[in-house]
Amino acid sequence: MSKYQHIREEAFEANLKLPKLNLVLLTFGNVSAADRNLGVFAIKPSGVPYMELTSDKMVIVDFEGNTIEGDLRPSSDTNTHAVLYKNWEDVKGIAHTHSTYATAWAQTHRSIPIYGTTHADHLTVDVPCAQPMDDDMIKGNYEHETGFQIINHFKELGLSHKEVEMVLVGNHAPFTWGENAEKAVYNSAVLEALAQMAYLTEQIHPSVNRLKDSLINKHYDRKHGSNAYYGQ
Amino acid sequence: MSKYQHIREEAFEANLKLPKLNLVLLTFGNVSAADRNLGVFAIKPSGVPYMELTSDKMVIVDFEGNTIEGDLRPSSDTNTHAVLYKNWEDVKGIAHTHSTYATAWAQTHRSIPIYGTTHADHLTVDVPCAQPMDDDMIKGNYEHETGFQIINHFKELGLSHKEVEMVLVGNHAPFTWGENAEKAVYNSAVLEALAQMAYLTEQIHPSVNRLKDSLINKHYDRKHGSNAYYGQ
Amino acid sequence: MSKYQHIREEAFEANLKLPKLNLVLLTFGNVSAADRNLGVFAIKPSGVPYMELTSDKMVIVDFEGNTIEGDLRPSSDTNTHAVLYKNWEDVKGIAHTHSTYATAWAQTHRSIPIYGTTHADHLTVDVPCAQPMDDDMIKGNYEHETGFQIINHFKELGLSHKEVEMVLVGNHAPFTWGENAEKAVYNSAVLEALAQMAYLTEQIHPSVNRLKDSLINKHYDRKHGSNAYYGQ
Amino acid sequence: MSKYQHIREEAFEANLKLPKLNLVLLTFGNVSAADRNLGVFAIKPSGVPYMELTSDKMVIVDFEGNTIEGDLRPSSDTNTHAVLYKNWEDVKGIAHTHSTYATAWAQTHRSIPIYGTTHADHLTVDVPCAQPMDDDMIKGNYEHETGFQIINHFKELGLSHKEVEMVLVGNHAPFTWGENAEKAVYNSAVLEALAQMAYLTEQIHPSVNRLKDSLINKHYDRKHGSNAYYGQ
Repeated sequence: MSKYQHIREEAFEANLKLPKLNLVLLTFGNVSAADRNLGVFAIKPSGVPYMELTSDKMVIVDFEGNTIEGDLRPSSDTNTHAVLYKNWEDVKGIAHTHSTYATAWAQTHRSIPIYGTTHADHLTVDVPCAQPMDDDMIKGNYEHETGFQIINHFKELGLSHKEVEMVLVGNHAPFTWGENAEKAVYNSAVLEALAQMAYLTEQIHPSVNRLKDSLINKHYDRKHGSNAYYGQ
Repeated sequence: MSKYQHIREEAFEANLKLPKLNLVLLTFGNVSAADRNLGVFAIKPSGVPYMELTSDKMVIVDFEGNTIEGDLRPSSDTNTHAVLYKNWEDVKGIAHTHSTYATAWAQTHRSIPIYGTTHADHLTVDVPCAQPMDDDMIKGNYEHETGFQIINHFKELGLSHKEVEMVLVGNHAPFTWGENAEKAVYNSAVLEALAQMAYLTEQIHPSVNRLKDSLINKHYDRKHGSNAYYGQ
Repeated sequence: MSKYQHIREEAFEANLKLPKLNLVLLTFGNVSAADRNLGVFAIKPSGVPYMELTSDKMVIVDFEGNTIEGDLRPSSDTNTHAVLYKNWEDVKGIAHTHSTYATAWAQTHRSIPIYGTTHADHLTVDVPCAQPMDDDMIKGNYEHETGFQIINHFKELGLSHKEVEMVLVGNHAPFTWGENAEKAVYNSAVLEALAQMAYLTEQIHPSVNRLKDSLINKHYDRKHGSNAYYGQ
Repeated sequence: MSKYQHIREEAFEANLKLPKLNLVLLTFGNVSAADRNLGVFAIKPSGVPYMELTSDKMVIVDFEGNTIEGDLRPSSDTNTHAVLYKNWEDVKGIAHTHSTYATAWAQTHRSIPIYGTTHADHLTVDVPCAQPMDDDMIKGNYEHETGFQIINHFKELGLSHKEVEMVLVGNHAPFTWGENAEKAVYNSAVLEALAQMAYLTEQIHPSVNRLKDSLINKHYDRKHGSNAYYGQ
C-alpha cells in the first residue's frame, strides 16, 4: 500500500463532496489534501468525471508541482495548489470550484461585502478578490502565478490566511483552504452561500450598508476571542 | 428513559425537516420544542451535522438558558430561544434558519411587504424586521438580547406573536415559532417562500403596490374570522 | 366501488405530480378531474399533505360546488373550480398552484409577455393576468367570484379558453386547465417555465421586444393550422 | 438487429442525460447521433416523454431530413439537425434544449459576453446569437431555414463550428454540437452554466468589462495551442 494512502483517501472523499454540495458542474473543480511531513499533496486527476474517481486515481504531487506518484495527469490547477502549500505552511487542504455565485462575483472583480452575521461567523472582512494578473504574468507559468496572485493580494490587504480561508481570483473563480481537505470544501460551500446572499441583498436594496463594526467585532470575538463560544 | 424524551423526539424530528425543506446549509439552523409544564425545551446541540443528529443528542435547557440535561453544548442561539419561551407563554416550538431569501431580506433591514394572497393566508402584515441592536446591547449578552430585540420590535409595532409567527432579525436571519416545533418549521418554509416571491415581484415590477386592504381583510377573516374556513 | 373511482384516481395521480414538478410548497395547490357526463369533479381535500393523499381521500363535488361524496372538506378553492367547469363546458381538468415565478408575476398584476418560441409553442398571446376583484366582489362569495374574475377577463380580451389554457389571478396565483387533469398539470409546468424565462429575459435586456408577429403566426399555424405538425 | 443500432443507443443515452443535467422540462429538447459513413442520424421521436424513451424508439433520418427507419415521427426540429449535419461535415452529435438561462439570452437577441475563464476554457468568443429570420424565411420550411440561420450567422462572424460548438437561435433556444452526441450534451450543460453566470455577473456589476484579450489568448493557447495541456 502506498505511503500516501491516507491523503489519497482524504482527497478522494473531499472531491466527492463537491457535486453533493452542488458546487461543481461536470468536471470543473478539484480538491487536494496535504501531508506536510511528507511534503506532498494528493489531488484530483485532470478531466476525470466525479462518478469515475477512486482514491487510487488521485495524483501525488510535491510542493514544487512535480508528480511523485500516479498514472494520471494531475489537475491543470495543480501548480496553484503547490504554490499555496509551499508559502502558507499550515494549510493542509485546498479546494477550487467554479460554483455559480462565487464565480459570478469573481467575474466582476468585486470583493463580496460583509452584509450579515452568516458572513461574520466565518470571516470578518469582505471576501477578497484578487485582481486579474498583469499581462507578463499571464504569459509566464499561468497556474503558478495564480498562486502568487492570491498570496500577494493577501499581503497587500494585510490579511491572514488563517483568519480568511477563501479568495476570489478575478475573472476566474474561488479558491478556499483550511486545516484539512474537508474544511476546505466546507469553506467553498460557505463562500457560495455568502455570494448568493450578498447578490440578493444588493438586488433587494441597492444602497444597503455593510454590517456595522460593533457587530463585526462581536462576531469576531465570539469565534476567535479569549471567551470564544461559537458553533451552531 | 428521560422524562424529556417526548420533546427530544419532537425537536429531533423537526430539526431533520430543515435540510429536507432546503432551509439550511451545513449546520446553520436549529429548532427547539418546549414542554411548558416542565418549564424546559429540547434544542439541537452546537455544531453537530444534521446527518449525525439523534434524539439523545438534543440538549434540555430551562427558560433561563441553563442546561438541565445533555452531554453536548446547546446551540449558540439557545439564549434567544429561552427569552422567547419565557416571555411568550403559549409558544411551544421555535425554529431558526439562515435560509437564503429570508436572510437576504434581513441583511437589508427591510420588512417583507405583503404582495399577495400566499402571504395574506399566513399573516396580514408585512413580515417584520427587527432593526440591529444598539452597540451597548451587542456588548452585553448578545444572544439573550436578540430575544428582547424581537420582543421589543413586536411591542413597537403592536403585533401579536400569536398572529405573526415569524420575524427577521436585522443583519442576521429569521426566527419563526408556533404551537409546536413542526409548526415552527412550517413557518420557516412559508417565510422563505414569501421572501423569494416578494424579491421576484419587485424585480419584475419595481413600483408594485402592496396588496389592497380589502383583500388583506378578506384573507384575515377567512382564516381568523368567526366563519373561518381556510385550508388548502 | 364508487362510480367516481376513475376521477378519484385521475385527480390523485395529477395532484401527486405537483410536488414532483416542484410546483408546490407544503400543501399550496390542488388539481381536479371532471366527469362531464356525471356532472361532478374529484378534487384534493383541504389541508392534507401530499404525502398522505390517497385516491379515497379525494372529494366529489358537483358544478354548483356541493359536496356529493367524501368525508373530508374539499380544497378551499373548490368554488373556483366549480365555476370554471360550469361555464367552460369542454374543460375536464383544472390545476391551481402557487408556483414561485408565476405567482410573482400575478403579484405584479402584469401579464407575461410572449418573448420566444417556448411560449409561442403553447399559446400565441401574453399569458393573461386577471386584475384583482372589486371590493364588493371580495366581500361576497370570494372563491366563487374568482371563477368569474377569470371568465370575465377572457371575455374582455376576446380569448378562447380552448387556445389559452392558463391565467394569472392578480395578487393570487395561477390557474391552468385542459382536456384532463394531467394536461392541466402539464400547463402549470409550462406556465412556470415561461414565467421564469420572461423574468430572466427582462433582467438581461430591460427594453426587449415581444416576439414578432410573423413568428407568432408561424408557431400558431404549425400547432393549430390545417397542416399542424408540432410536437417535440 | 438494425445496422443503425449503435447510433440508436448513442442517441438514446445522450437524450437521457438532458433531464439528468436539468437541461429540459417535460419533452422540450432532443439529441441526435450521426453515422457519417451511413449518411444518417438517430434522433428522439416527437412528443415522447423522457421516461418512456428506448433506443428502439429513436428515428433514423438522412441528411436531407427523410425518415429511413422507425415507426414514430422524428422530433419537429429534425430538419435543423439535418441541415447542420449536411453542411458541417465533421459534426457527429447535435443537442437542442430550451434550458432556462440560455433560452432567456436567446429571447433578448444578445450574444453572451465572455466574462471569465469558465467561458474561455470552452470558447474564446462571445456565444453567438443568430438573429431571428426574415419573414420570408419564416413562411418557408421553418426548421430547415433554422439550420441555415445558424450556418449563415457563423459565416458572417467568421466563426469556425469546430472551435465554437454552440449557438443561440434568436427568440428560440440553443443548439450545441460536437464529435459525438455525448459531447453535444456536454456543451449544452456548459452553455447553460455560462448563460447563468453571465446573467449574474451583469446583475452584480452592470458596467462589467469583457475578459481582457491577454487572458482570452492564454486560455485559447492552453487548450488549442501547440503545447495544449488543459483539462480540469
